[in-house]
Amino acid sequence: MTPPPAARHRTASEQVGSALLDAAQAVLDREGLSAVSVRAVASEAGVAPMGVYNRFQNKDGLLIALATRAFGALKDAVGTGDPVEDPLGRFREGCRAYRTFALRYPQQYRLMFTGVESLASPSPAAEHGSATLQVLVDTIDVAVQQGILRTEPVQAAQVVWNAIHGAVSLELANLHVTLKRHGFDPAETYDRMLEVLIDGLR
Amino acid sequence: MTPPPAARHRTASEQVGSALLDAAQAVLDREGLSAVSVRAVASEAGVAPMGVYNRFQNKDGLLIALATRAFGALKDAVGTGDPVEDPLGRFREGCRAYRTFALRYPQQYRLMFTGVESLASPSPAAEHGSATLQVLVDTIDVAVQQGILRTEPVQAAQVVWNAIHGAVSLELANLHVTLKRHGFDPAETYDRMLEVLIDGLR
Repeated sequence: MTPPPAARHRTASEQVGSALLDAAQAVLDREGLSAVSVRAVASEAGVAPMGVYNRFQNKDGLLIALATRAFGALKDAVGTGDPVEDPLGRFREGCRAYRTFALRYPQQYRLMFTGVESLASPSPAAEHGSATLQVLVDTIDVAVQQGILRTEPVQAAQVVWNAIHGAVSLELANLHVTLKRHGFDPAETYDRMLEVLIDGLR
Repeated sequence: MTPPPAARHRTASEQVGSALLDAAQAVLDREGLSAVSVRAVASEAGVAPMGVYNRFQNKDGLLIALATRAFGALKDAVGTGDPVEDPLGRFREGCRAYRTFALRYPQQYRLMFTGVESLASPSPAAEHGSATLQVLVDTIDVAVQQGILRTEPVQAAQVVWNAIHGAVSLELANLHVTLKRHGFDPAETYDRMLEVLIDGLR
């Protein structure tokens, strides 16, 4: 069945937007947030700057779209596994995937959590952060229903988010000095943190 | 007793440095990190830019000195109370003081944890962050010795630091959207987090 012209047009427009975001992400991952400009992204994508302005209005629009997509990718990474079958297993895997994402895409992670703070608050990125957090809320909720954890799920998910965000932020900023000096491995310490949280929420 | 000339000279120099740092901190707290420049700080202090260059070499030197002093203030704030008398009470008070500091001086807090990441790693600021962390290590160590907590103190202190740093970072970035939507108070949620950590470390 041939899609109606309006739908076909939207799809082409989405493809352009996606290609420009790919270019913006490439600049961000390679050169950092300060290098992301309408001009640099247009150059990376091989289009005129007007093509970027038409799609994202300005640099802030581009950064919000980038952060939004990154939050979506983080949500997908965290939300793997079956929450009903093994909620604590899914909790551990999701939290480990969170760290893996942050260490693999440090520039995207920084953009998501500090790069758009000058914008309207709560920003669209904050809403998408909320959707990512919901994965944790749902997992904890299942664990509570199964009697594995005894806690209020939303507040507990925030506590967990605080801990995993703080852990990867300090690791990305190379502020694990004391830990390293005492011979502790960051990954092992992260796992230890997850067990402290689980034990504290039982 | 009259101090020797060398000591008198050093004291005067320290006073100049301290006055310049006061000026830099005033610019930072009022206008944010992007406004801190040698020129702006000199203007705030009422001296020629050369006075700032002579003392701190360049803007990076100024920022490191600012971050170092802020870490010292944070350490002083966290390290109140008697660790032997009531280690868990001191733990709670210290962690609450950490949040109070961050919310009162958000620009200094951001500088400490993200503002100097482009500099040599580990930076002098990281060393001072380590000294702040040591207060937590010592407090947890006392609790372990008294049989109140059962954990390795350095790793446990890192877990706690992860959690409190993540909590204030997300709060400063206005990413507490879900929490607020469900009617939870950030301060109460922070206290709940401290109890989760304590229970998880018992």
